[in-house]
Amino acid sequence: MEVNIKPIGALITEFSRLPGVGQKTAQRYAYSVIDMTDEQAQAFAEAIINAKNNVHYCKVCGNFCEGEICDICANRSSDTVCVVKDAKDVIAIEKTHGYNGLYHVLGGVISPLNHVFPNDLKIKELLKRIGDGNVKEVIIATNPDVEGEATAMYLSNLLKPLGVTVSRLARGISTGTELEYADGETLSRAIAERRTL
Amino acid sequence: MEVNIKPIGALITEFSRLPGVGQKTAQRYAYSVIDMTDEQAQAFAEAIINAKNNVHYCKVCGNFCEGEICDICANRSSDTVCVVKDAKDVIAIEKTHGYNGLYHVLGGVISPLNHVFPNDLKIKELLKRIGDGNVKEVIIATNPDVEGEATAMYLSNLLKPLGVTVSRLARGISTGTELEYADGETLSRAIAERRTL
Repeated sequence: MEVNIKPIGALITEFSRLPGVGQKTAQRYAYSVIDMTDEQAQAFAEAIINAKNNVHYCKVCGNFCEGEICDICANRSSDTVCVVKDAKDVIAIEKTHGYNGLYHVLGGVISPLNHVFPNDLKIKELLKRIGDGNVKEVIIATNPDVEGEATAMYLSNLLKPLGVTVSRLARGISTGTELEYADGETLSRAIAERRTL
Repeated sequence: MEVNIKPIGALITEFSRLPGVGQKTAQRYAYSVIDMTDEQAQAFAEAIINAKNNVHYCKVCGNFCEGEICDICANRSSDTVCVVKDAKDVIAIEKTHGYNGLYHVLGGVISPLNHVFPNDLKIKELLKRIGDGNVKEVIIATNPDVEGEATAMYLSNLLKPLGVTVSRLARGISTGTELEYADGETLSRAIAERRTL
C-alpha cells in the first residue's frame, strides 16, 4: 500500500512545482501543512490567491504593482532608466536604497538557444519611452553572464544613436571577497577597470 | 522604497513558515506563484485547504487518514504492531513494501528537555490495544537517536511484562555505505550484532 491519502499526494504534487523543490522537500512541506492550524492553512491559501489576483505588472515599466502603474512610476520623476531582466531585480536594486531613478523590465534576456529573441522582450516599449524624450541615461543592469552581456551589447548599439547615455553596472571584486578565491575573470576585470584614488 | 507590494510580502511571510525555508527561498517561491497561471495558483491554494480539511489522524493507530479509521487499520489483520514517532514514518515504512502489519503512532518521543513526557504520547492507547488481546509482537521503530532509544527502552520495560514480544529495528551499516566512511558507533554496532551466514 503506497501513500494513498489523496489530499496529501495532491499537495505534494503542488509543492513540487515550486522552483528547486524535489519530492522529499515537497513531502516535508505537505506534512507541515497538515500540522498547521485551520487558520494558518486558510491564511496560506488566501495569500496565494491574493498574490496571484492582485499583483500585476506595471503598464509603464513592467515592475510588480497592485494597480495599473507601479509606485515608482507614479511617484518618481527622473531622467534615468535602469533596464533589468525581471521585476524581482527591481526589488533587489530598490533594497539597496542606492538608486532613485526609474526602471524598465525587459521580461527576459536575448537567448537564441532558448528561443528568446529581441522581439520577445519589452525593447519596443523601452524605445518608445526614450522617444518620448524625458530619458537622458539608460543603465543596463542585466546579469553579468553571457546572455545578460549579449543583451546589454544589443541594447547599447540600439540606444546610443538615440543620443542617450548608455551605462552598465560596474564589474569588479565583490565586497568581502578574498582575492585568493576570486575567479580569474572577475579579478582580471577588476584590474583592467581599476580606479585612481 | 522597500518591497511594498503587500500581497507579495504576505505570501513571502507565509512561505517562510514552512520548515527550513528562509527569506530568500520564500521570495523565490512567492515570485514563482506570481508567474503561475490563474488555474495553477487556484489548484495550489485548493490543495492546501483540501489537505488540511480532509486529512485526519486515524482513531485507532494515529496514521494519516481521510475518514475516521485509516486504510491500514480497516483492511489489514495482523498481530504485529509497529510503533513509530510520526504518521510520516508510517508512509516511509509502507513505501518499502517490506512490512504487512499494523502501526501505532506515538505522536512524538520522550524528551524531558522539550517537556515531552510519556503522558504526552499515545502510550495509553497502545497499552489498550495490547490489552484487547490481539497483539503478539510490538516492533519499536523510533529513530536511532538518543530520544528515540530512550523511548524504545521505556516502552520495552512497559510492554515486556504484558507477555508480548518486543523488538527493535536492526542496527548496522546502511546499504551502499563505504566502510571507510561509516561512523564508529554504527560500525562497532554492526560488528557486535553480526549475523552467522
